[in-house]
Amino acid sequence: MSRQTRKPIVGVIMGSESDMEVMNHSREVLKEFDVRHEVRIISAHRTSARMSEYGRLAVSRGLKVIIAGAGGSAHLPGMTAAETILPVLGVAINAKNKPLQAAVASQVEMPGGVPLYYMGENDSGAKNAALGAVRILALRSPHLAETYTEYVAQMAQRVEEADNLLFEIGPEAYIKQMN
Amino acid sequence: MSRQTRKPIVGVIMGSESDMEVMNHSREVLKEFDVRHEVRIISAHRTSARMSEYGRLAVSRGLKVIIAGAGGSAHLPGMTAAETILPVLGVAINAKNKPLQAAVASQVEMPGGVPLYYMGENDSGAKNAALGAVRILALRSPHLAETYTEYVAQMAQRVEEADNLLFEIGPEAYIKQMN
Amino acid sequence: MSRQTRKPIVGVIMGSESDMEVMNHSREVLKEFDVRHEVRIISAHRTSARMSEYGRLAVSRGLKVIIAGAGGSAHLPGMTAAETILPVLGVAINAKNKPLQAAVASQVEMPGGVPLYYMGENDSGAKNAALGAVRILALRSPHLAETYTEYVAQMAQRVEEADNLLFEIGPEAYIKQMN
Amino acid sequence: MSRQTRKPIVGVIMGSESDMEVMNHSREVLKEFDVRHEVRIISAHRTSARMSEYGRLAVSRGLKVIIAGAGGSAHLPGMTAAETILPVLGVAINAKNKPLQAAVASQVEMPGGVPLYYMGENDSGAKNAALGAVRILALRSPHLAETYTEYVAQMAQRVEEADNLLFEIGPEAYIKQMN
Amino acid sequence: MSRQTRKPIVGVIMGSESDMEVMNHSREVLKEFDVRHEVRIISAHRTSARMSEYGRLAVSRGLKVIIAGAGGSAHLPGMTAAETILPVLGVAINAKNKPLQAAVASQVEMPGGVPLYYMGENDSGAKNAALGAVRILALRSPHLAETYTEYVAQMAQRVEEADNLLFEIGPEAYIKQMN
Amino acid sequence: MSRQTRKPIVGVIMGSESDMEVMNHSREVLKEFDVRHEVRIISAHRTSARMSEYGRLAVSRGLKVIIAGAGGSAHLPGMTAAETILPVLGVAINAKNKPLQAAVASQVEMPGGVPLYYMGENDSGAKNAALGAVRILALRSPHLAETYTEYVAQMAQRVEEADNLLFEIGPEAYIKQMN
Amino acid sequence: MSRQTRKPIVGVIMGSESDMEVMNHSREVLKEFDVRHEVRIISAHRTSARMSEYGRLAVSRGLKVIIAGAGGSAHLPGMTAAETILPVLGVAINAKNKPLQAAVASQVEMPGGVPLYYMGENDSGAKNAALGAVRILALRSPHLAETYTEYVAQMAQRVEEADNLLFEIGPEAYIKQMN
Amino acid sequence: MSRQTRKPIVGVIMGSESDMEVMNHSREVLKEFDVRHEVRIISAHRTSARMSEYGRLAVSRGLKVIIAGAGGSAHLPGMTAAETILPVLGVAINAKNKPLQAAVASQVEMPGGVPLYYMGENDSGAKNAALGAVRILALRSPHLAETYTEYVAQMAQRVEEADNLLFEIGPEAYIKQMN
Repeated sequence: MSRQTRKPIVGVIMGSESDMEVMNHSREVLKEFDVRHEVRIISAHRTSARMSEYGRLAVSRGLKVIIAGAGGSAHLPGMTAAETILPVLGVAINAKNKPLQAAVASQVEMPGGVPLYYMGENDSGAKNAALGAVRILALRSPHLAETYTEYVAQMAQRVEEADNLLFEIGPEAYIKQMN
Repeated sequence: MSRQTRKPIVGVIMGSESDMEVMNHSREVLKEFDVRHEVRIISAHRTSARMSEYGRLAVSRGLKVIIAGAGGSAHLPGMTAAETILPVLGVAINAKNKPLQAAVASQVEMPGGVPLYYMGENDSGAKNAALGAVRILALRSPHLAETYTEYVAQMAQRVEEADNLLFEIGPEAYIKQMN
Repeated sequence: MSRQTRKPIVGVIMGSESDMEVMNHSREVLKEFDVRHEVRIISAHRTSARMSEYGRLAVSRGLKVIIAGAGGSAHLPGMTAAETILPVLGVAINAKNKPLQAAVASQVEMPGGVPLYYMGENDSGAKNAALGAVRILALRSPHLAETYTEYVAQMAQRVEEADNLLFEIGPEAYIKQMN
Repeated sequence: MSRQTRKPIVGVIMGSESDMEVMNHSREVLKEFDVRHEVRIISAHRTSARMSEYGRLAVSRGLKVIIAGAGGSAHLPGMTAAETILPVLGVAINAKNKPLQAAVASQVEMPGGVPLYYMGENDSGAKNAALGAVRILALRSPHLAETYTEYVAQMAQRVEEADNLLFEIGPEAYIKQMN
Repeated sequence: MSRQTRKPIVGVIMGSESDMEVMNHSREVLKEFDVRHEVRIISAHRTSARMSEYGRLAVSRGLKVIIAGAGGSAHLPGMTAAETILPVLGVAINAKNKPLQAAVASQVEMPGGVPLYYMGENDSGAKNAALGAVRILALRSPHLAETYTEYVAQMAQRVEEADNLLFEIGPEAYIKQMN
Repeated sequence: MSRQTRKPIVGVIMGSESDMEVMNHSREVLKEFDVRHEVRIISAHRTSARMSEYGRLAVSRGLKVIIAGAGGSAHLPGMTAAETILPVLGVAINAKNKPLQAAVASQVEMPGGVPLYYMGENDSGAKNAALGAVRILALRSPHLAETYTEYVAQMAQRVEEADNLLFEIGPEAYIKQMN
Repeated sequence: MSRQTRKPIVGVIMGSESDMEVMNHSREVLKEFDVRHEVRIISAHRTSARMSEYGRLAVSRGLKVIIAGAGGSAHLPGMTAAETILPVLGVAINAKNKPLQAAVASQVEMPGGVPLYYMGENDSGAKNAALGAVRILALRSPHLAETYTEYVAQMAQRVEEADNLLFEIGPEAYIKQMN
Repeated sequence: MSRQTRKPIVGVIMGSESDMEVMNHSREVLKEFDVRHEVRIISAHRTSARMSEYGRLAVSRGLKVIIAGAGGSAHLPGMTAAETILPVLGVAINAKNKPLQAAVASQVEMPGGVPLYYMGENDSGAKNAALGAVRILALRSPHLAETYTEYVAQMAQRVEEADNLLFEIGPEAYIKQMN
């Protein structure tokens, strides 16, 4: 599928084209779980009206969860959370030579009354934001809950298989076969 | 109501009795929105088996969202997220003379694959965690969505009224009536 | 004068009533320099539409400089800078038990293309933001430039008088008369 | 134009030749907006007398705004602000293996009474410092205000075009054409 | 020896295969001191039941010391310490693009009552964790105490030889022979 | 017992009399577990020869574990670890208006080859250091192992009793009886 | 003696009257060692010309060492070091609600070529700066070297006496007599 | 000259051979100013007795200043300062993958009574430590004072020449000739 989904239930937004590589990790997880989604470039500072509109129309457009990634001063996730009542899941991005810590701080110090769900930074943050969306959607989809449970079991299995192999052949052989 | 709710859909857990004062802000919001909930003291380090069991049984007990507050090394929220597929919303608590930053770091650096939703620290974090639970639950409850929308409108109104009064009487008079 | 100025050229805005005590230091300097100004409570998260409107109308309303103070995630200064082409001078406020560092980070990591002038934190930041507004306005007002030059000379004089007294009576006597 | 402007209204100064690459981003913006400017190497520590003189003569030489970039202990911007009543816009530079944080701290903690406008770090900081100078100069130049408004509109347009393309061809195709 | 030791007295565990390269420094020291040990991959988040079991059975399996390395939120060392009464020596690992500071904070802020011995980060941390295990085991093994004392003497000797050579041939010649 | 133990197996040392209140938490735990110990004031900087001697004679005096607490630059724990082959358990103390972070950094960055076991800061750090000593000593004392196991069970029981009471009477009544 | 010394060899300068309480610790040490000194209030930002002059004339006025204390952006010590070839010993002061870290960073990141001797923060920093001046002056004064050696011996003696008393009466009695 | 100086007045010491490249910057400055010096590798942790002896004998061996560089927990400079009454100038080294901040913290938080002169980090810190030694020695050597004054003048001249060239040929040409 190369076009955007027609009726997305998850919106993945980011402040700049340069965030695309990181936020693609959200997209891949959503695709893996077969969740309808859209990917958008919306800047809080350069296209503030568009950002406001995106947040205000999200519910009526059928969205259930918004994932917002941003770097630098990273106002996008918090400002979007202010424009909608949907859960907005934030991701901090280490972009444009800006310190990551600013993008985190800007997201984890929201005022009481305006919740933002901070999911982590960069690739693993974008991945976990999508898994976070799946957990929320799974609350009303037994099928998604089942698929997610399987996903968790497979993660465990991979670790256990590695440990079993390590136990069997010993660390020296294990390290050799890693390379 | 002085007893715990019989069929809670939100579980508010904390690592120690000393976290109760902070986490009570979650409870108050849930009560204000009339969301059935339970409040529990469960320590990741002192009662690890109980914590595992709480996470593993959460879905079958009918819970939809877990709010977990912890201070210090703050392993409770992340470990609970590892035991369930429900959304686990984390709160960092500045307790016991431990630096808050540790409780934050322990929650915002979860490995890819195990999402934790970090909601903020102390009173405003606990409040926003409960509002975050409400946003998630509102996805399947038009009534809750409506109540939440009203809540947002009232927040705006209070700010606007303050600004209108300030405009009318001027800053000097305004500051006087603040005290 | 207890009412707001009719034709303000400096707008002092803040995200919450609780920021008033700090931002009053801006107001006092502007009053001392006889600069027409208004003081407003406008929340980026609770009244985002009002914030956008304030920024967009600022030029046509005759404002020349905006001073914006905020604590916590502190999106107000940066978002206002995105809505206007006027200089927006930011102040970080240590409010509501939030770490000051977040309010600083949110203001000093603006993306290239959207400048925000960060002036410092709390009381001295609010004071310097107003002095910063005066420096800008003095570029087109020889009278204001003269007043400001006098202000600088008086600051120097106070330090020199203290040093002269200290030299004359010696440190022990000086410390005694301090208390 | 290869020579320095004869009657500059913006002075771009830096503490060392090694800051030139970063501060060139200020110069490029000023050139793009056709603002007369000069670029100078003036060290607070190595040529303190020259620095004092530069600040003291700035007004009489016709300057309106000074942009000062420095790394390490970064005393240049603050000390220049102490020598003039012009707005001095500071930039922190990550130079000479020194931690950037020092250059920021040295600029954002000026004492009450001596305002410094901190604009950000490195390339984007230098760029925003120049845009900050433009915003100040635009207060008295309708032509500059118009050019700047156009600049803002073009930034928005570039983001919207990217988002439109992304919507049209979908994220997978979009990512491909990025590389 | 390529297989795991049959009756290990030190267990070296880590949260992920990607930690192996760092934790191999523990293994090398244990091998050098001829201490029976096992190396295991056990994830606190992905295989929490396996982690609990490993901790609970450690004493009965004959282990005396556990070395636990982890990156990111790094719950493994502290959670293992909660499941056993053996000394658990923690190592922070700078893995997976996560800030090291999180892995440190998660280990050095354990609640009163649940001790974790933090040994340092990355290669030197893993090395010192193994030396820490040797110091503990040497309390009941005169042979190990003697070997360790020799190890310390050799470290001193290497520094003294370097200093003697430096004194003899002078710094310029010394630097030349370093390269 | 008011005199120092005649044949101590744990030495509790600190750099200054002002550290006594914190390090007393180590003493209380050792006393509770009936472990023979001594408490000493030994400064790395003011009595460096005495510190060296204390470390060098520790084994022959019968000590098995040393607990060392220090604030500020906190060289005592690391320097003692360099003078003995016994396990030295470090505690960072927030003393004399010095930042705690320095005392931590000085202890957790020991060079490869010289292990120091960092146990935490202030009261809970001192407590855990003593518990850490108990865990080590329990390796050769079945009686101590049994006592410690009981201690762990009691900690769990206290949390479970609190949770049970909370469940029974509900959070509101619980909070009331807390005060 | 209540007047300033006529022919001072150590100059103690500070940026503001509010730094006097801290810097008085320098004065007390210099008095204790009978070192001729002067105490001055000189602001880098408010009286920059006076500061330059103080530095430039220091040698010819007979000064041998300058101690400079400052808080906030703390440019005074570094700028003074740029104006003289005397050793300038810096002290960071936690004054005026400014973060101490800024005053430290501003002093420890001086550019290569302009040395500043950073001695520590607040009371102990001011005390050590004076002791640092004494160490330098003792290089040419056998009498001062002897006095200083005695001072060091007395510090050791006080610690040893405390330790001896503690050994004799035991920790419980010792703690009692502390209060 | 390839051998060590016979009668050194400055001792340059470092904790490890790996610090040599950084500390060589001290040596080069001392050589440039023709100051007799020695360079030594002395580890606080690996050769603590040697370190103590070096400090205790420094005065009688004719040393006037000690420069001590160290990385990681960096106890060498502070411990050396505890063993001598000479000025000990500290340098923090970013060595062995350890965070520089630890090496700084360990040096700038010395207890009141034991002064350490912290000079900066890495190459510029080592350079400034040597210049700091020169400033101290120049107090009793008119020749050295003169040489140092010339050095300062040359630094100024180089900056002024760069600025003059920049003024003459303009920034574009200047940047070109830089590369």
